[in-house]
Amino acid sequence: MIKIGIAGYGNIGRGVEAAVTRSHDMELVAVFTRRDPLSVHTVTGTQVLAYDQMDSMKDDLDVVIICGGSATDLPWMTPELASKFNVIDSFDNHANIPEHFANVDAAASAAGKVGIISCGWDPGYFSLARILADSALPEGDSYTFWGRGVSQGHSDAIRRIEGVKDARQYTVPVEAAVESVRNNEHPEFTARQMHLRECWVVAEDGADKAAIEEAIKTMPNYFEPYDTTVTFITQEELDRDHSGLPHGGSVIRSGRTGLDSEFDNTVEFTLNLDSNPFFTGSILAAAARAAYRMNSEGQSGARTLFDVPPAYLSHHTREELLAHML
Amino acid sequence: MIKIGIAGYGNIGRGVEAAVTRSHDMELVAVFTRRDPLSVHTVTGTQVLAYDQMDSMKDDLDVVIICGGSATDLPWMTPELASKFNVIDSFDNHANIPEHFANVDAAASAAGKVGIISCGWDPGYFSLARILADSALPEGDSYTFWGRGVSQGHSDAIRRIEGVKDARQYTVPVEAAVESVRNNEHPEFTARQMHLRECWVVAEDGADKAAIEEAIKTMPNYFEPYDTTVTFITQEELDRDHSGLPHGGSVIRSGRTGLDSEFDNTVEFTLNLDSNPFFTGSILAAAARAAYRMNSEGQSGARTLFDVPPAYLSHHTREELLAHML
Repeated sequence: MIKIGIAGYGNIGRGVEAAVTRSHDMELVAVFTRRDPLSVHTVTGTQVLAYDQMDSMKDDLDVVIICGGSATDLPWMTPELASKFNVIDSFDNHANIPEHFANVDAAASAAGKVGIISCGWDPGYFSLARILADSALPEGDSYTFWGRGVSQGHSDAIRRIEGVKDARQYTVPVEAAVESVRNNEHPEFTARQMHLRECWVVAEDGADKAAIEEAIKTMPNYFEPYDTTVTFITQEELDRDHSGLPHGGSVIRSGRTGLDSEFDNTVEFTLNLDSNPFFTGSILAAAARAAYRMNSEGQSGARTLFDVPPAYLSHHTREELLAHML
Repeated sequence: MIKIGIAGYGNIGRGVEAAVTRSHDMELVAVFTRRDPLSVHTVTGTQVLAYDQMDSMKDDLDVVIICGGSATDLPWMTPELASKFNVIDSFDNHANIPEHFANVDAAASAAGKVGIISCGWDPGYFSLARILADSALPEGDSYTFWGRGVSQGHSDAIRRIEGVKDARQYTVPVEAAVESVRNNEHPEFTARQMHLRECWVVAEDGADKAAIEEAIKTMPNYFEPYDTTVTFITQEELDRDHSGLPHGGSVIRSGRTGLDSEFDNTVEFTLNLDSNPFFTGSILAAAARAAYRMNSEGQSGARTLFDVPPAYLSHHTREELLAHML
């Protein structure tokens, strides 16, 4: 049994809890929190300990799965914990990945541990789709479409507008753009041409709805570069129809083979997820299995899923894989 | 530059020739044939040598990509060549993979070489889709749909019928079956429910077309378990409309996450290929890159793509991968 700790208990922490609990080769030892441990109650009844208690549990934990935020938690937390444990995170701030990788690599290498970063679905499984498609089709163009799904960052941005009580934002791929890529037209897109933004907003009593809509649609980076729809609904409707966290999307590469580039090809990887954090948690659990195996055979340092032989993610034996999955 | 040899020069050999020639980190040294070398002319003008000449070229070849048939060539050829070279093949006889793996492993291990078997798209990239989806969604069902594409085995089977001059068979997925899987209905299918078989047949002058159609539709294993359409056309029409070798298909896994299996998810990997052998050749070339790297760091023995860190398939540097593809 691989002994797992979870650091941080938000949506993704709960997703990891479910995935680890249901894995036959893993045991969930504890959830660690920087909040008051008495204030945190796990769904499975797994014990909740203070973050600082991890230090005294080096022999009790094979891998720590870090479920903090990429903006302020993971940049320091993953290197710190990699100096003591094999660790997994889902760091998703694409621009800062090289720096984060270097920090984790230094800590994990010095400690003789393995740290696999960015193990969600993007970055993560979508990254694997990109590298596999690119390796088979070096001449071509890759596209990533997100959605239809809830963007928590965009939902939060709407909630910060004056007069907004609650909100939910869906990112939606433009179907004509997806079709153009599939048809090997190799389009060059603006942001607006690839995705729509669909906003469901609960206004406070007496709020100026026209002003809210204007504030959303003109918000730089978040909404201004996109065609955005704003629909006002009641809190009851929001809770009833928009309480889930579905997401998904597609990585599509269109590329040519043949000496004269005479053959068109598409490679497409699509996810449709009822729950974004629970699928992310499930990948994090599989990555923990890989980190444990890689460290057991003597490896250390930072890794990404690019460095992981896929068999290391699987709970199946080599014999099962050769006989039934190859 | 990775020095590549190709053993066997059929459709897949030509696909490898194109992929290697266009790779900036590979050099195609020679094509080896068991036919009279003077009778074989490569598209690129690459030299053609007799199969037995490979033995004297151990220092000139980093990896040999074996482009023979799975029925009668690869079972002896891959182990034999793995005792002298790093090798790649696209062995696709699923039932015999464990035995083939063991034979290649024995030869490659003894020689200190790496042999990666079954590196096409199925087995190969579809296998990767299956293991990645299964690892993220251990509770679920995986389905593989092939087509729309040309099955050369089924086309050959039709050509062996008396009175048939030429034929082309397309395997076609049943759209309703694909939709049912995508809708997380977890169906159990018969062969007939998943695929149609579409046959385009050129009859010899005076042949009994009704008898040909009956012979096709009742052929055990090949056509009897499927809904099969037979259309008679002229050789001119066949050559004009059906001369390509397109193929593709989808691996779809539908699986549940959540402590109570409350969330449905699908993972889908789809290929649409103008040319089946040229895409296969492209994957074989990428696998050769991986075999070279794995052997260079001291590995030996048989491998499948399950054992290959995806970064080893890519021509990009680690820095490029972290910055642009993760």
